[in-house]
Amino acid sequence: MQPTVIAPSILSANFAKLGEEVDTVLAAGADWVHFDVMDNHYVPNLTIGPMVCEALRKHGVTAPIDVHLMVEPVDRIIPDFAKAGASLISFHPEASRHVHRSVQLIKSAGCQAGVVLNPATPVEVLDYVLEELDLVLLMSVNPGFGGQSFIPSALEKLRAVRAMIDARAPHVRLEIDGGVKADNIREIAQAGADTFVAGSAIFNAGDYADVIRRMRAEVDAAR
Amino acid sequence: MQPTVIAPSILSANFAKLGEEVDTVLAAGADWVHFDVMDNHYVPNLTIGPMVCEALRKHGVTAPIDVHLMVEPVDRIIPDFAKAGASLISFHPEASRHVHRSVQLIKSAGCQAGVVLNPATPVEVLDYVLEELDLVLLMSVNPGFGGQSFIPSALEKLRAVRAMIDARAPHVRLEIDGGVKADNIREIAQAGADTFVAGSAIFNAGDYADVIRRMRAEVDAAR
Amino acid sequence: MQPTVIAPSILSANFAKLGEEVDTVLAAGADWVHFDVMDNHYVPNLTIGPMVCEALRKHGVTAPIDVHLMVEPVDRIIPDFAKAGASLISFHPEASRHVHRSVQLIKSAGCQAGVVLNPATPVEVLDYVLEELDLVLLMSVNPGFGGQSFIPSALEKLRAVRAMIDARAPHVRLEIDGGVKADNIREIAQAGADTFVAGSAIFNAGDYADVIRRMRAEVDAAR
Amino acid sequence: MQPTVIAPSILSANFAKLGEEVDTVLAAGADWVHFDVMDNHYVPNLTIGPMVCEALRKHGVTAPIDVHLMVEPVDRIIPDFAKAGASLISFHPEASRHVHRSVQLIKSAGCQAGVVLNPATPVEVLDYVLEELDLVLLMSVNPGFGGQSFIPSALEKLRAVRAMIDARAPHVRLEIDGGVKADNIREIAQAGADTFVAGSAIFNAGDYADVIRRMRAEVDAAR
Amino acid sequence: MQPTVIAPSILSANFAKLGEEVDTVLAAGADWVHFDVMDNHYVPNLTIGPMVCEALRKHGVTAPIDVHLMVEPVDRIIPDFAKAGASLISFHPEASRHVHRSVQLIKSAGCQAGVVLNPATPVEVLDYVLEELDLVLLMSVNPGFGGQSFIPSALEKLRAVRAMIDARAPHVRLEIDGGVKADNIREIAQAGADTFVAGSAIFNAGDYADVIRRMRAEVDAAR
Amino acid sequence: MQPTVIAPSILSANFAKLGEEVDTVLAAGADWVHFDVMDNHYVPNLTIGPMVCEALRKHGVTAPIDVHLMVEPVDRIIPDFAKAGASLISFHPEASRHVHRSVQLIKSAGCQAGVVLNPATPVEVLDYVLEELDLVLLMSVNPGFGGQSFIPSALEKLRAVRAMIDARAPHVRLEIDGGVKADNIREIAQAGADTFVAGSAIFNAGDYADVIRRMRAEVDAAR
Repeated sequence: MQPTVIAPSILSANFAKLGEEVDTVLAAGADWVHFDVMDNHYVPNLTIGPMVCEALRKHGVTAPIDVHLMVEPVDRIIPDFAKAGASLISFHPEASRHVHRSVQLIKSAGCQAGVVLNPATPVEVLDYVLEELDLVLLMSVNPGFGGQSFIPSALEKLRAVRAMIDARAPHVRLEIDGGVKADNIREIAQAGADTFVAGSAIFNAGDYADVIRRMRAEVDAAR
Repeated sequence: MQPTVIAPSILSANFAKLGEEVDTVLAAGADWVHFDVMDNHYVPNLTIGPMVCEALRKHGVTAPIDVHLMVEPVDRIIPDFAKAGASLISFHPEASRHVHRSVQLIKSAGCQAGVVLNPATPVEVLDYVLEELDLVLLMSVNPGFGGQSFIPSALEKLRAVRAMIDARAPHVRLEIDGGVKADNIREIAQAGADTFVAGSAIFNAGDYADVIRRMRAEVDAAR
Repeated sequence: MQPTVIAPSILSANFAKLGEEVDTVLAAGADWVHFDVMDNHYVPNLTIGPMVCEALRKHGVTAPIDVHLMVEPVDRIIPDFAKAGASLISFHPEASRHVHRSVQLIKSAGCQAGVVLNPATPVEVLDYVLEELDLVLLMSVNPGFGGQSFIPSALEKLRAVRAMIDARAPHVRLEIDGGVKADNIREIAQAGADTFVAGSAIFNAGDYADVIRRMRAEVDAAR
Repeated sequence: MQPTVIAPSILSANFAKLGEEVDTVLAAGADWVHFDVMDNHYVPNLTIGPMVCEALRKHGVTAPIDVHLMVEPVDRIIPDFAKAGASLISFHPEASRHVHRSVQLIKSAGCQAGVVLNPATPVEVLDYVLEELDLVLLMSVNPGFGGQSFIPSALEKLRAVRAMIDARAPHVRLEIDGGVKADNIREIAQAGADTFVAGSAIFNAGDYADVIRRMRAEVDAAR
Repeated sequence: MQPTVIAPSILSANFAKLGEEVDTVLAAGADWVHFDVMDNHYVPNLTIGPMVCEALRKHGVTAPIDVHLMVEPVDRIIPDFAKAGASLISFHPEASRHVHRSVQLIKSAGCQAGVVLNPATPVEVLDYVLEELDLVLLMSVNPGFGGQSFIPSALEKLRAVRAMIDARAPHVRLEIDGGVKADNIREIAQAGADTFVAGSAIFNAGDYADVIRRMRAEVDAAR
Repeated sequence: MQPTVIAPSILSANFAKLGEEVDTVLAAGADWVHFDVMDNHYVPNLTIGPMVCEALRKHGVTAPIDVHLMVEPVDRIIPDFAKAGASLISFHPEASRHVHRSVQLIKSAGCQAGVVLNPATPVEVLDYVLEELDLVLLMSVNPGFGGQSFIPSALEKLRAVRAMIDARAPHVRLEIDGGVKADNIREIAQAGADTFVAGSAIFNAGDYADVIRRMRAEVDAAR
């Protein structure tokens, strides 16, 4: 299993002073910046695109930027994000007619590649592409819709994908996104996740460092 | 003709400190905040959505926020922007099957409504909706594509729409967007525009106040 | 100008006993059955399709059935409606890439052909197809959305299209749909309509015959 | 296994007197009203929408109305059907980008939720959503196309899904739709179905009560 | 008016020996090769793409290749055709959200640019783009559908566009496509066309040179 | 396992003299003509359609023409290819909402039917349709993109599908397409393929007969 990564989702940060927010959360111990891209087609919301990613790089952010594309189709915008400084780019297989090709496109642009599974997506979509990936992201809420809590069946899926990764592709990270909080992260880690996205759980906390420290401690306890 | 409005496009601002950028440009004399929304479908780029608009309002921006939707379709996202604090919402008629209805939707959400004409769009699209509008926005570059200069035929279209507005709906603002600079804004104002979007011309200038002052002086000279 | 036609829209009828409803309204003096087809794509609603049209014919309805397609695209479903007994089929030009071809398709299937203009659609869409048509339908509300009243600018458009028809194609009917009632139908007829769709104005009235009689009297007064 | 349900599809009823048809078939022993919604996009046909459902409720129908959405996308129309009186709403997972979310949407609107599998759809689509469902509907013909008979491989799929339901979610109904008749329903019931849609087999029969009675007897013999 | 051009459409040639066919028709006096591209989306047919164009260039064809895109959208495939040796590229304005931009894209790729009007398309689509064009192509049949004859209203449109070109942009060619034959080409030329596409009229003739000679003589007589 | 078939892809042939190319390659020992259809939607390229297929038949080609549809949707164009002389028609299941129905449509048009799996497509898509098929085509490169070599995980998928075919449907051919050459074809045959598409490996060779002979010898050695 890969070393633990805590990846705060900047969707919960203050967009009026995003550079400062990102600086603060990284200084507080976050490992990655999780960057949620919605296009009002794959999901019913529109968030932020390559220009905002590029602004973070120009602002001086050097941590990995972990771009989750909730867009459809995906190929046209991949090179834009690579150029804008993305480190990892993940996409939903339903949103690309050519999943293997989209993975190659991400890698040929110099980024790490991930595939994202919606809560109801079966794990068979990974069968012939897992070895090519750097990351599998499991959604434990429905992307693009607010106010949801962790969907319990995601634990079972974590275990299934964990087993696939351990057996066939141990270099692949297993990331979880949706309703992750200090009080359920241990159970999630036990199910197999090594990379944790958290939005409001971090940015709505008074003390970013404290909540990240507690999350990391819970994960350590699980491993 | 309506009083002059200078509307800096925040697409040229620094997204890492957007609140500060907007505060500065408004303090420098700008009237409106121009907010360019792209969805990677109507145009091949994805920019910023309602959350960023809302962040500006929470940051304390009280100036009108002038949302230009380069998205398709348009109706689903209109209420999101109204709720996020938009003052005016404009859309491209090709991007809505029900132009009159989209205008009503914007107005019923408490915003002012505009229609945007691409460089090649004929002015007849305004024939049966002009009176319902608060704003007509003429594109003098192709939206969503970078590095373009002012398309000269936009002057002719400005004159044509100016005449329609004067004759039928003098309450309607006539806005221009694309390649507007201090050294061509006088000619543009003479052709009939009263509302001016400028991006790099303002945000790439060392002194925002100086360039806005020069633009306004040129417009005054034209009127 | 063509003889007056009153065409009740069965969208306001009782779908649990549609045959009886149609019999009654025809016996009450209606001329045509207006049949509104929505597909949840061109408009955000889904109503009734060819099977319902065919059921009316099998039930014994012999009056003209005037099918208004609020669907996109249009060509695939045209032969289905022709086979189901439609007399006239109208469509929105924005919903067909090949307007002239769709008109030919309707006519080759043995039906009369119409083109429908949304409230904001310019009349130039008729310039090179008017002579081929049997009917122009002007929407005086936005199709597919409930609870609207007659849009006043439709009067101006009626006058413009009336002039085109009189000059170039007097065999073409000019139909109006949306917010038509006994107390505004005279003004609408004066503006040039000869064919009148009415939904709730007829089906919500206690006495269908009375309201149709009053409508016809108002139209007669206008002509 | 859940108690047997016979659900006549009103697509085979007489739409000119639908209320009476439904009254009759319910009086003849049917349990549910099966309501097939086609939008001319997910399938090449357009049938009936929420207004017809609402008319049945206003007519006095109190039996469960079992809405099968052959539409794409599905989320926009779900609340309309809930409001129109639907009891159960089923959709095809290929027609929703967010299957888990669409299920939640149906349930939050107060209806029971189902997922429909086309003849070639693999059963893995149920893996992470089965427990959330009230119903799985297996198509034993291709939806939206007429004149087909029962596809034999549906028996194998019935057995596979029956096993999944028994093991993990015994509260879920297993419904079958397509080519079900009195002379094959026993075999279908033996394969695991408990809920049976039949269209022409019932409505084309002279005596609805007789055919429903025979179907039920065959199912009883199988269980 | 520009010098006469006869442009045989290779859609009527023998695709089994296309190089030879094109050599022969050019030797017989044809000026251009007209190349009809259909994508099964903009029109219900799929024909030939960039590889076939490139094969003609490699075969040694040096005459202008006049590519008519009946595809939607258009921007992605434009550079492919430019690279494959196209001389002129024309597209339908309904098939591009950004007509002015598509024209610039064609020109920046080193080709001449045209806009195509379907039989029912109003001429106002040319109002703000005519000066940028090298060619206007008027369809006198519906593209993508076989067995049609020349639509008479195209003559009226030829006269209207001829007047626009003469007044504003005399460098622009006016091309006609659909049902052009030796026995109606004089009337078509009189209405203003200078560039003539003909398919079966040439390729179904025994003697290509003879029919081209007769066509040219008729055009000369008209000018 | 079915007898070996070598199917040269005419995408690598010279389109200026396609009839001759096909004659030559068949005389050199090829069994089938592989015909790659791209529509610029399912894949970002547009190649050749039914007219080219028909031209080959008129030219005298009697060998099986093996049409691989890289188009979406698929149903509209299937009858066109059947009429144009196709022997087998294969499509991608993601490109049809009704996979079983598309298979039936191909067979009812008198052709053999195949389903194509992209490199990342899981084999479960075959679970309920395999028996209906005549052919399964596995892509060992991403269709529609040039310059790729054989993807190694295709060998594993060949073995998986070979086992399914042997167990359930031995009449089904197992075809492979992408990066097949004389020096890897033995390994591919060992993994279970019996039908081999090769493009540049054949058409770029000086001596078609020699390369086909070597390929066949390698396959024989593997079986």
